[in-house]
Amino acid sequence: MNKNIKCYGSSKILNELQNTNPLFLCVIASTKTSNIPGITGAGVTPELTDYTPAADLELVIHGEPRCLAEIPQTVVGDAPAPTPAVITKASLNIADIPIMVADAGAAIKPDVPYIKLNEKPGEDIRLGNAVPDARKIFENGILLGKTLSKLTDHLVIGESTPAGTTTALGVLTALGYDARMKVSGSMPENPHDLKHEVVLEGLQAAGYKEGDVVEDALRAVEIVGDPMIPAVAGIVIGSEVPVTLAGGTQMTAVCSVIKGVQNEFDFSKLCISTTIFVAEDETSDINHITRQIGDISIFAVDPEFEKSQVPGLKSYLNGSVKEGVGAGGAMMVSMLKGESIDDIRLNIEDLCKKIF
Amino acid sequence: MNKNIKCYGSSKILNELQNTNPLFLCVIASTKTSNIPGITGAGVTPELTDYTPAADLELVIHGEPRCLAEIPQTVVGDAPAPTPAVITKASLNIADIPIMVADAGAAIKPDVPYIKLNEKPGEDIRLGNAVPDARKIFENGILLGKTLSKLTDHLVIGESTPAGTTTALGVLTALGYDARMKVSGSMPENPHDLKHEVVLEGLQAAGYKEGDVVEDALRAVEIVGDPMIPAVAGIVIGSEVPVTLAGGTQMTAVCSVIKGVQNEFDFSKLCISTTIFVAEDETSDINHITRQIGDISIFAVDPEFEKSQVPGLKSYLNGSVKEGVGAGGAMMVSMLKGESIDDIRLNIEDLCKKIF
Repeated sequence: MNKNIKCYGSSKILNELQNTNPLFLCVIASTKTSNIPGITGAGVTPELTDYTPAADLELVIHGEPRCLAEIPQTVVGDAPAPTPAVITKASLNIADIPIMVADAGAAIKPDVPYIKLNEKPGEDIRLGNAVPDARKIFENGILLGKTLSKLTDHLVIGESTPAGTTTALGVLTALGYDARMKVSGSMPENPHDLKHEVVLEGLQAAGYKEGDVVEDALRAVEIVGDPMIPAVAGIVIGSEVPVTLAGGTQMTAVCSVIKGVQNEFDFSKLCISTTIFVAEDETSDINHITRQIGDISIFAVDPEFEKSQVPGLKSYLNGSVKEGVGAGGAMMVSMLKGESIDDIRLNIEDLCKKIF
Repeated sequence: MNKNIKCYGSSKILNELQNTNPLFLCVIASTKTSNIPGITGAGVTPELTDYTPAADLELVIHGEPRCLAEIPQTVVGDAPAPTPAVITKASLNIADIPIMVADAGAAIKPDVPYIKLNEKPGEDIRLGNAVPDARKIFENGILLGKTLSKLTDHLVIGESTPAGTTTALGVLTALGYDARMKVSGSMPENPHDLKHEVVLEGLQAAGYKEGDVVEDALRAVEIVGDPMIPAVAGIVIGSEVPVTLAGGTQMTAVCSVIKGVQNEFDFSKLCISTTIFVAEDETSDINHITRQIGDISIFAVDPEFEKSQVPGLKSYLNGSVKEGVGAGGAMMVSMLKGESIDDIRLNIEDLCKKIF
């Protein structure tokens, strides 16, 4: 196996994915939870996090954001860290991998052709009624997964959902998984206590006490999830081809919902692909979460940003951003198509120089 | 060649399409022109034509309309003629051909996952400012065509646009083609004079006198077109694989825009596929229009509805409906995948019995 792809769990699926022609789908969504000060770094201000998913995908498709004058950057860190959208774009373009966008409920809609799964953003989970349409979004996801899996032999699903690790913590906690202090985040300092408080407030608002387990996975999403989670869970269940979940701990919440809806789901036809920045993050533990759900292989790509000439990319080494817009999975499938990590990194750097 | 596929022009492309794995994309749109009484049969009342595209695609995807309690039927004729959506659904399902939906500006949005290209319906063309965003829709179409052509080796594009033959007449007339009395329609009596008056009124409102030629194809769409036309023209230009335009005379307007935007466009990688009800319609002349544009092959499928046990389908023989939702092209690609016209017709009948 490639030395820049670290494997946690069985590496068997990676051989099966070696000669596939992947389709990369990025699912975007918002949750008003991202407007809580201090909860996410995915935006210059809490309010601007509403624009991040749209701006990210505009950057991937057009090479520049259109809904915002400025490129999304995560502001905490030594140098402003560029959005992971540049990693995704560079990785997919170099290997000529097709990209589609699906809207599961972004606050600001991207100026690109996109697949509409749901209109409305999620509510602040503290209200305990975050995604009233979770079942409908899930059903639409199933339909989309069925269709897309007729058009590709490998579906790669990324996401852009500011504050998505908090809603992931919400769903995991509601479903009885031990995820406290384990979800990742976009800042070097992971505000675990704030995330935990926000989740408990939401569960309590819906009538649950600490430690109560919500029996119905989609009900957990309704209460304290975000719209991306049921969309991606549905797409995975609808897919008839192998799926790579391109994301960090947010994708473990997707897996928990898949398991909750289909207890017999075969996780051997699925993997999570992320960056080394998530997998080796000392403020979170993705493996601790997935182990509780099932035999889910995790692959973590190391883009060796320590070799980079772009200071912003080095901020990733200090815990800024870490992942997003399917960056880890995009690098992995690019490598599966024969690109070297050095070429991918050079492409990312070129893109950074061009657009920042 | 199959005796149920009549060819006008070169049949060469049909051999090239024989072993392809098609993707069927249906582009839906509305134009307020459809609210003019008497101009279209695609709806029980002029106002209900706003619901027809959404209801059609809900029927194709879910097997039933959701935005309307009633199935769209064209009301003129001996027996109410079922929407061509049943032909499309039966033809594509039997051959397991994947279906996607794109919204170029439907008044009512379908309750299915769909690709968003444009939000707003077209205006009444009598105002002479029908599709202000035509260029933007065209650009989005190009992006979508590029992406989809990475996922299939044969793109089949249908449409559902009530009053679309009137807007087609508008664009063709504006661009200097002789299309008067030549566009088709969904009723046995084709209201040619009304369509012509409406088009002239629109051109005059935009400052053009009868016989003036609009030099810019997308400007013609802006004045007297509908949002489907620039969307499909863009998708065709963006596509890197052969395209079948699944529709009647509306698709000639698409071809006129393609020619107007790219004078050197190679029409040998494209064909129009429709029903025998359009191709042999005595109230219109699709060949007369295409001959003025370029060497465009037209294939017309005869589903032999005279053999049908369903009275509504026999209404097609008397000039009701004729085409729509890509019905002709859907039957053709189903036949290219090995289905017989008898099996396709039986499937259509079964579907009619199930849902009406």
